[in-house]
Amino acid sequence: MFTNFVSAHQVSTNDAQALIDRAEAFKAGTPAPAHQPVYAANLFFENSTRTHTSFEMAERKLGLTVIPFDPGHSSVTKGETLRDTIKTLAAIGINIAVIRHPEDTYYEQLLDVSPTLAMVNAGDGAGQHPSQMMLDLMTIHEEFGDFTGLKIGIVGDLSHSRVAHSDADMLTRLGAQVMFSGPKQWFSPEYQQFGPYVPLQELVPQVDVLMLLRVQLERFNNNENAAFSKESYHAQYGVTEQLAQTMKPSAIFMHPAPVNRDVELASVLVDGPQSRIFTQMHNGVFMRMAMLEAVMQARHFGAVPAHSLNH
Amino acid sequence: MFTNFVSAHQVSTNDAQALIDRAEAFKAGTPAPAHQPVYAANLFFENSTRTHTSFEMAERKLGLTVIPFDPGHSSVTKGETLRDTIKTLAAIGINIAVIRHPEDTYYEQLLDVSPTLAMVNAGDGAGQHPSQMMLDLMTIHEEFGDFTGLKIGIVGDLSHSRVAHSDADMLTRLGAQVMFSGPKQWFSPEYQQFGPYVPLQELVPQVDVLMLLRVQLERFNNNENAAFSKESYHAQYGVTEQLAQTMKPSAIFMHPAPVNRDVELASVLVDGPQSRIFTQMHNGVFMRMAMLEAVMQARHFGAVPAHSLNH
Amino acid sequence: MFTNFVSAHQVSTNDAQALIDRAEAFKAGTPAPAHQPVYAANLFFENSTRTHTSFEMAERKLGLTVIPFDPGHSSVTKGETLRDTIKTLAAIGINIAVIRHPEDTYYEQLLDVSPTLAMVNAGDGAGQHPSQMMLDLMTIHEEFGDFTGLKIGIVGDLSHSRVAHSDADMLTRLGAQVMFSGPKQWFSPEYQQFGPYVPLQELVPQVDVLMLLRVQLERFNNNENAAFSKESYHAQYGVTEQLAQTMKPSAIFMHPAPVNRDVELASVLVDGPQSRIFTQMHNGVFMRMAMLEAVMQARHFGAVPAHSLNH
Repeated sequence: MFTNFVSAHQVSTNDAQALIDRAEAFKAGTPAPAHQPVYAANLFFENSTRTHTSFEMAERKLGLTVIPFDPGHSSVTKGETLRDTIKTLAAIGINIAVIRHPEDTYYEQLLDVSPTLAMVNAGDGAGQHPSQMMLDLMTIHEEFGDFTGLKIGIVGDLSHSRVAHSDADMLTRLGAQVMFSGPKQWFSPEYQQFGPYVPLQELVPQVDVLMLLRVQLERFNNNENAAFSKESYHAQYGVTEQLAQTMKPSAIFMHPAPVNRDVELASVLVDGPQSRIFTQMHNGVFMRMAMLEAVMQARHFGAVPAHSLNH
Repeated sequence: MFTNFVSAHQVSTNDAQALIDRAEAFKAGTPAPAHQPVYAANLFFENSTRTHTSFEMAERKLGLTVIPFDPGHSSVTKGETLRDTIKTLAAIGINIAVIRHPEDTYYEQLLDVSPTLAMVNAGDGAGQHPSQMMLDLMTIHEEFGDFTGLKIGIVGDLSHSRVAHSDADMLTRLGAQVMFSGPKQWFSPEYQQFGPYVPLQELVPQVDVLMLLRVQLERFNNNENAAFSKESYHAQYGVTEQLAQTMKPSAIFMHPAPVNRDVELASVLVDGPQSRIFTQMHNGVFMRMAMLEAVMQARHFGAVPAHSLNH
Repeated sequence: MFTNFVSAHQVSTNDAQALIDRAEAFKAGTPAPAHQPVYAANLFFENSTRTHTSFEMAERKLGLTVIPFDPGHSSVTKGETLRDTIKTLAAIGINIAVIRHPEDTYYEQLLDVSPTLAMVNAGDGAGQHPSQMMLDLMTIHEEFGDFTGLKIGIVGDLSHSRVAHSDADMLTRLGAQVMFSGPKQWFSPEYQQFGPYVPLQELVPQVDVLMLLRVQLERFNNNENAAFSKESYHAQYGVTEQLAQTMKPSAIFMHPAPVNRDVELASVLVDGPQSRIFTQMHNGVFMRMAMLEAVMQARHFGAVPAHSLNH
């Protein structure tokens, strides 16, 4: 029961399949069911284009009423705690708070705020990003119809990724085989349970899905390793046009974006026929509709006369 | 006639009761009447969570169309005057401008801007905050059913409060008995007409309502008085758990929020059974609906064919 | 065919007349036709009150669904290119992106982004501002019923204006006679093809329309010319109350705003009977409705079942 949707740990393989089915139905044109007014607010304490805009779109397609909230113009600037801010929004009648926040597991302290307010986590620090995981799964499912036996390579900044761990965990549970590559020092022990580290030249030719992870640009702007430049990363750990020619013709690229063009992936490949990077963004809207709907159903939002929600 | 709603001075005791009745009806589920399109904009030149979000919610519950406006991205940054900004919004078709501005009585120069644009004051400098006064009154009315004979203590930063003076004035006119406490240097002569200063230990046991006022945190960060800390304020002028035990069981806490927890009020009491602080926020939405509706009625907004508003 | 609306160069005299007719019909109360959901986003990379608010209003009057987008909180801050940002919005399902950007002809690189995303240019650097030109034309048409034989003076900062060149070009093609004034060093050779430079004292008495251009305040804050102050500009190149008395009684003032009161124009004249400055703002909403509608028609947005737009 998704009374809140805050972590990939909540998602069973059955849940994942049900959410994918529902998102694919929305994408195929199934209209969102009518409901009593439900009020959403999006609280983004970190900058975002894709996730923020995608949730805004999903909310409107579901028929939610969206109340604007800008953290920089809120009482957070007067020292109000996040918990008091969320309690305030609950008192005002917000039913769904979509939150991105730089603090890991910020949501733990907010789970019990109110029976009339649900949280959807849009990313916490270096922690969870469940809607990204779900849209990744949807994109793979849409492409291949099934997860069993798929070979999936996850490449890049494993230690800073909000989704690599969740994706690896869920894909393994769904029957896929996961491998990792990129700078070896970023392959932390927690990943070993899911699959092996494989040098990039060996990994690329055998995978069905190449999931590239964004490298934080700050990585390249320090003195620690002057030899570590965008160009050297691309040559060693990025997918060049030459390397891409060793891929299976049916294999696809994925990336959570924004892509550093010619770093993780040669720019021309970002827009090429094997890229599903913009498909991921497109699918994200429908997946977020499915996730928000799951939360509304678990909480019975919209099912009851509207004014009852506010009592 | 609320052709604009800018000051508590506009509100007679009859008006106050009518607005309370209407807000309580909205809270009980009375739907907002259908009307032709009416366009609102919220201009917050100071940060706010509660007031801003509450007006946004009230507007949507009334069926208004809300046009976003961010002062920081407006031509105000190019030196445009507030009057020219409001004239511009009127020309563009905004019917209701909800404004918070740091300048006292900013609204005086704007009253005659346009017959098709009404102003609602959401707080001016250290001046008026009529929607806060009205939601305070509603919360007391909802609790006790009547004002006559109620004892109300107003405690704290009287000299910086936008509502203490208005609340004291209106509550007195409605038949309540008002008393004041907190640091005595903040009890300015203007308050003496409404009621006496009473030491906090004496005041707390006899009141029905304890209205606490937010202390500006800047008060504690200067050299003027190094001994004046959050802790010392709480011990001397705040409501500690121990002091709260001397209250009547039927008495309630109120606070305009954001609360400085463990300064004006012990944190546990903010969320306790005698607190109506989140009820105030909740009531604020319905009261703002009643106030906006009163302005729409006085101006005949929404009653006439929509395009006529823009001629 | 306005598959995008980015430049005055796209607009034939027939187009101009058709858009003016449609905007005047909207102003007279013609309702916007019903359509399937169409999604708009407004991307303002420069501050604006008039243009931004006017597009927001026009979109809602047309029944578009507006998805908020704040460049300052977007991934543009992480170095994402404008092209990737627009591709992202297209993938998410935005159909119309209204963009203001400081870079000249930024839109050239974006024309082919997606068949389901159209651009409307709300101002590019010192380049185009087609909606301002169109609302200027509408305001003149509404006043005089025809352009043939009208005498129009364009006065002020010709070298920094986004609309002076387009307005002069189109007005000439529509049969009006254009003249220029202001500091002579700002009368660049490109204007000579449209009409002569005329000293202000000679120009004012003979024109039907006096189009004043905003002077960038930065002009006055440099050492280049210490004698160049607001006061000296007003006396030499601005319209003083005295000079205004030499105008024809039927002549009107126009200005793209925000006006520097008592610089380009004496403050009392801004609000006087010959000013059409606020009428321009009012007309801008209806003209932008006509322009957005033209784009929707060229792209068949809203005509097809909603979900097809997102495939």
